Amino acid sequence: MKKYNVAVVGATGLVGSEMINTLVKRDFPVNHLRLFASHRSAGKELEIKGEKIIVEDVDKSDFSGIHIALFAGGKIASRDYARKFVEKGAVVIDNSNAFRMEPDVPLIVPEVNPHQVKNHRGIIANPNCSTIVMVVVLKPIYDEAGIERIVVSTYQSVSGTGKEAVEELLQGSRAMLDNQNYIPKVYPHPIAFNLLPHIGPFTDNGYTSEEMKMVNETRKIMEDPTIKVSATTVRVSTQRGHSESLNIKTKKKISVERVRELLSSAPGVILYDDPAKNIYPHTLLCDGKDEVFVGRIREDISQENGLDLFLSGDNLLKGAALNAVQIAELLI
Amino acid sequence: MKKYNVAVVGATGLVGSEMINTLVKRDFPVNHLRLFASHRSAGKELEIKGEKIIVEDVDKSDFSGIHIALFAGGKIASRDYARKFVEKGAVVIDNSNAFRMEPDVPLIVPEVNPHQVKNHRGIIANPNCSTIVMVVVLKPIYDEAGIERIVVSTYQSVSGTGKEAVEELLQGSRAMLDNQNYIPKVYPHPIAFNLLPHIGPFTDNGYTSEEMKMVNETRKIMEDPTIKVSATTVRVSTQRGHSESLNIKTKKKISVERVRELLSSAPGVILYDDPAKNIYPHTLLCDGKDEVFVGRIREDISQENGLDLFLSGDNLLKGAALNAVQIAELLI
Repeated sequence: MKKYNVAVVGATGLVGSEMINTLVKRDFPVNHLRLFASHRSAGKELEIKGEKIIVEDVDKSDFSGIHIALFAGGKIASRDYARKFVEKGAVVIDNSNAFRMEPDVPLIVPEVNPHQVKNHRGIIANPNCSTIVMVVVLKPIYDEAGIERIVVSTYQSVSGTGKEAVEELLQGSRAMLDNQNYIPKVYPHPIAFNLLPHIGPFTDNGYTSEEMKMVNETRKIMEDPTIKVSATTVRVSTQRGHSESLNIKTKKKISVERVRELLSSAPGVILYDDPAKNIYPHTLLCDGKDEVFVGRIREDISQENGLDLFLSGDNLLKGAALNAVQIAELLI
Repeated sequence: MKKYNVAVVGATGLVGSEMINTLVKRDFPVNHLRLFASHRSAGKELEIKGEKIIVEDVDKSDFSGIHIALFAGGKIASRDYARKFVEKGAVVIDNSNAFRMEPDVPLIVPEVNPHQVKNHRGIIANPNCSTIVMVVVLKPIYDEAGIERIVVSTYQSVSGTGKEAVEELLQGSRAMLDNQNYIPKVYPHPIAFNLLPHIGPFTDNGYTSEEMKMVNETRKIMEDPTIKVSATTVRVSTQRGHSESLNIKTKKKISVERVRELLSSAPGVILYDDPAKNIYPHTLLCDGKDEVFVGRIREDISQENGLDLFLSGDNLLKGAALNAVQIAELLI
């Protein structure tokens, strides 16, 4: 079996760490694994499958011989280095939003649009976490009944912001429990025992960049620019896992029973929908899980062809690292 | 000035305590204040404006001479005792859902339908907390442009469940921070660093009772049975204050500027909407505040005559105790 030289860029961050874990867990055929980070984290030693690997400074390294590079160092790192990896022969799978909406960059969710992978010209984009966990659930419904419009409100955990945000949640929570003061550094307001309807910068139309990602990326991944989406993205005081409340208008009528049937066999999805037994998705449930949990499926009483549902997916796994490794699996 | 004999039933609970505080804060003309609770809490002594009042056992007391009784002891207490107070001459303002949908019981939000108060026959109902904070914001929009449909997802704090739930959030949070185990007693799953799309029992159509309250009570308060509502109600790990993400379809086009203008002068509402300066509602902001904060107001990019907005209101004050005392003020 052919083995590949794989790089993880941003290897010491939350997503980068999960990319390494996921490569190991899924037995990705790695020949040589190279880890990169900024000079702040370079020199650290990570132990992977018993082997010690030193994190290289991305600014001072030669990228030759790398087949696949998983980027999780944020938008600036991707803008600065992705094309340099491509020039040296690597295919870059980029978790940032640096290239997602560029026409010659495929934006891939393997359960939804795997066929687009072949159109890459060196860079493949990994979608936004909230978008990924939504479209894996929408896809089977779309294929059967079409989708006209989605209204989505999210409940997103702080790990989507990064390590410092997780620290801020934990330290802020402890401070509040101890009646002590905690001045937020990562978010503009306290996040402990709170929530903020503010993810990413605000855009001219009043939506945030995160909300507009859910609009534009959904259309690109589903290959249907006619899908209407209105999103409200909210940061909540959870550590890991994103949940979403969806109100959907399909083009054709589809019964709740049929939706359940479709989702019970959908790839990457676990139907978790037996409210009478307190079985429904919630954020802690999906922590560390590969699949997106979906439940609370019901016929919308407020419109024709309407559906309501609730979903929870691990933002660091299916929302980021796992999806990136699945894209790499499509490539080999 | 005439003074009234006022009773608070359920005086030792979260809402009952806030009712007492609110009577004091708003200088309600109280002649004699009597406090009632179940036998478990009876005998406790509460100090109110320097005066010590002993909590009476509601099961063993004479209700004569009470003019206004504020009920916050839950549905069963209301079913058991409200009519007994009415028989003795009191007007009952009931915070439970025991009587809300009965045709001869007015369901009042003073900023929305104060004129209905006069139709009472002894009992006036205080609406559900999530509904109250929503309709004070909707009313000015409704009056100007009509409302066809609302899709709402909520972010509700644990104080809506009661004291034990607040304890469960705090103890569960501390346990998780200390890597210790905590078995939930109030909720079916852990609530600390989590969220549950489950408030109230599930009904036959797949919605919860809380979700159906938002549908049916909104129609009754707004006096318009044609308003369509789809709600998803979610318990989040906040202590006090409910937030809501609203997607609204109006009957006539209304601009965001006009909505802001209307809400800036709406009673009981604070327009808090300057995202560029990180000014938007969030749950901690509304904790202990009388008004409902509204912001993130934007034109919905997914439908004609659509609006999105986000609001936060204190579920124990405007969502319960304050609204009840405001109803009492309408009576006198």
